[in-house]
Parts: sequence; C-alpha cells; structure tokens
Amino acid sequence: MENAIRPYVPEPAIRRLPWYLACVSRLRAQGVEYVSSTAISKQLNVDASQIAKDLSYLNIKGKTRIGYEVSHLERELDDFLGFTRSHRAVMIGVGSLGRALISDSGLARYGLDIVAGFDTDPAVVGTEVAGVPVYDIAELPERRASLMAEIAVIAVPVEYAAEVAEQSVAAGIKALWNFTPFHIKTSPDITIQNTSLYANLALMYNRMNTR
Amino acid sequence: MENAIRPYVPEPAIRRLPWYLACVSRLRAQGVEYVSSTAISKQLNVDASQIAKDLSYLNIKGKTRIGYEVSHLERELDDFLGFTRSHRAVMIGVGSLGRALISDSGLARYGLDIVAGFDTDPAVVGTEVAGVPVYDIAELPERRASLMAEIAVIAVPVEYAAEVAEQSVAAGIKALWNFTPFHIKTSPDITIQNTSLYANLALMYNRMNTR
Repeated sequence: MENAIRPYVPEPAIRRLPWYLACVSRLRAQGVEYVSSTAISKQLNVDASQIAKDLSYLNIKGKTRIGYEVSHLERELDDFLGFTRSHRAVMIGVGSLGRALISDSGLARYGLDIVAGFDTDPAVVGTEVAGVPVYDIAELPERRASLMAEIAVIAVPVEYAAEVAEQSVAAGIKALWNFTPFHIKTSPDITIQNTSLYANLALMYNRMNTR
Repeated sequence: MENAIRPYVPEPAIRRLPWYLACVSRLRAQGVEYVSSTAISKQLNVDASQIAKDLSYLNIKGKTRIGYEVSHLERELDDFLGFTRSHRAVMIGVGSLGRALISDSGLARYGLDIVAGFDTDPAVVGTEVAGVPVYDIAELPERRASLMAEIAVIAVPVEYAAEVAEQSVAAGIKALWNFTPFHIKTSPDITIQNTSLYANLALMYNRMNTR
C-alpha cells in the first residue's frame, strides 16, 4: 500500500475522472492507441476544455494533433483514482446490503479489500461471507489494528449508524463509507463518504414524477 | 401504484429529506411524540431554518413551541420520498453487483421492486436470483410491458453501458439507475440517476490522502 500524498481535487472533477477512465478502457479494448479530448468529449457530453482541465490535475497533457496515449492515460487515471492500490476495509453490519457489498467482487477491482465483517447477530457472527470472516462487533477494538483496516463500510440499520460510527472511530478507523441515510457527525480528521442508495432512489422517483 | 405529480424539489433538499426520515423513525422507535426543528438540527448538524425550509416542500409546518408530530412527519416523508409506493424495475446485468442488488431486501423497503433480471451469459439466463427470474437480454423488448417495469437498473460491465441503456429506452423504460461509471447520454424525457460506487471510492481515497 503506497501512501503518497495526492493533490486535493475538487469533487466534481473526481466524479468525472472515472468517466474518462471508463471511456479510455473501452477504447483500449477496441485497439485505439490515441484519443483527443474532442473525441472523449463527443462520447461523454463533457466540454473538451473541461476534460483537458480535469486531466491537468494528473499532470497529463495531450500532444498537439495526436491527443492522449490511450493506455498511458488509462494507467494514470487508474492509479490517480487509487484503484490500483489496496485499501483494507471492514464491513460493519452483515445484513442484506453488507452481505451484498462483501460479495461484489467489483469493489476489489477498484481497490477496496473488505477483510472482515462485524455484526451483533449470533446467527451471522462466526460465519463467513464469500470467504470473509464475520466477528462480533465487540471485537472491533482489538481486531482493527491487526486487520490493518483504515476504512469502515457502514451498512447497519439506520438507528445504529451513529453508534457504530463512534465505535469505529474509537477503534482507529480513519474513513467511514456510510450506506445508511443517517448523517454522521464526527471529528474533522475522519473522512466520511456518504452513498445513500435510498436518497438516490428518492431523487429518481421525484424526477420521474415531475417530467 | 399512485402517479400523483409531485413538486420539483431541488437535489440538495431531496438528499437531506432521508436524513430527517431516519431521524424521526429513530425518535418514533424511542417513543418520542413531538420534535422541534432545533432538536433535529442538533442531531444532524443541519441549520434549523434549513430543515423548516426543506419540510415546507411537503407542506408540513411545525406547531409553535410543540414542533412536529413525529409519526405524522415520518409518514409524510416516507410518502413524499416515494418509499411507500411500488416502483417496478428490471436489473440489466446479473453479475456480481446486479446479483447483490437483487438480493438486497432494503431496496424493496424503499419502494424499488426488481421483478426480473436480464443478462447475456448462458450460465445465468434461465436461473433465479432470490426468486427473481433472469431472462436473455434479447427478450427485453417483448417482456418489458408485461413486467410493467419503468425503471432499468444498469449493472453491466462498463463497456456495455451505452448499448444496454439504448436497448432499455427502446423497450419503453422511463428511468435508468446507472451503477456503471459510464456517463449515459439519452433523450431528455428519460430520468437518469447515477450511483457510481467507484467514483465515491475515488473521492474517499483522495480525501484520506489529502488530510
């Protein structure tokens, strides 16, 4: 695990970079060697100047008339986004969603290695999900360091979100990937990433009804 | 399935409403009958005036000195967000993530009923995942209407995202919930909701490294 300090990149740019990665991966699979920001722009509906600006965070510049080298750009994006490094994580809550996320091999491809699950349910504690052991949440403080996990993925019922977030931080976790709709408050040196599937559903339902 | 036209609510407000729902559900479970926006504000770290403004989209007003009635507010939020109605959906791509999402019973709690899966893999087509049948994607045009599905959840490998989005829209799908990092372009009367788990991971990795 490399721990180079990376530049702070504005959120909208970070959200667009994976689009470019997906686009160049596709081009590489098709055998394309060079691509211009104009060509990426046409595929993604993003201004070419915006693409050039976003890519400048990676210190990547296209060559005049030739554009970007596809495989180089793919590698640089993959690396910059952190997908080529292993980030060890624990799953807090091994219910329906937690189980689903542990079983999604796609996360490992993008650098997230879920090395253990924690739950309170005696029916789940002591079992394995897709080869990942599930422990009692009471063991989180003693196991966290030896698991070398800095990320806790939170997929508990919403009423336990505040409590498990606190327990995770107390156990030495540095980042919380929160799948509950609860708005976690914690100290400013903890990274919080909220992914509320349900908020996204609400947004989609609303937009469908107002068209 | 009720199809009332709901007011257009700005995205940041819709993203906060599920926080309030989570908060009042918790209070209701604790037996609390009334809550003020100040009390919600303290729990969630959102300005009380912002909360009052967000809730005004639902035509809900608190009573002076008493605040909001908890169970009424919970019901109204649940309903307003669309979680109490059934929205029929098909899963396009029944790989690791698609399978995980079909198996996540939480989605049904929030109004998303995945009624069928579609894939191209002969090892998957003809099987069932958590009781949901998986069909060949070639059958989507003929099956879409009888399935009464208006939403397609897209969880295919990124290089097929553009193609299956087009097929879904051609088959009569009205909304795409896109889990791939591909930036889908389509006609303006199609609702697109992007949930890129990988973009969220990239954001979290970047923030962890820049602290």
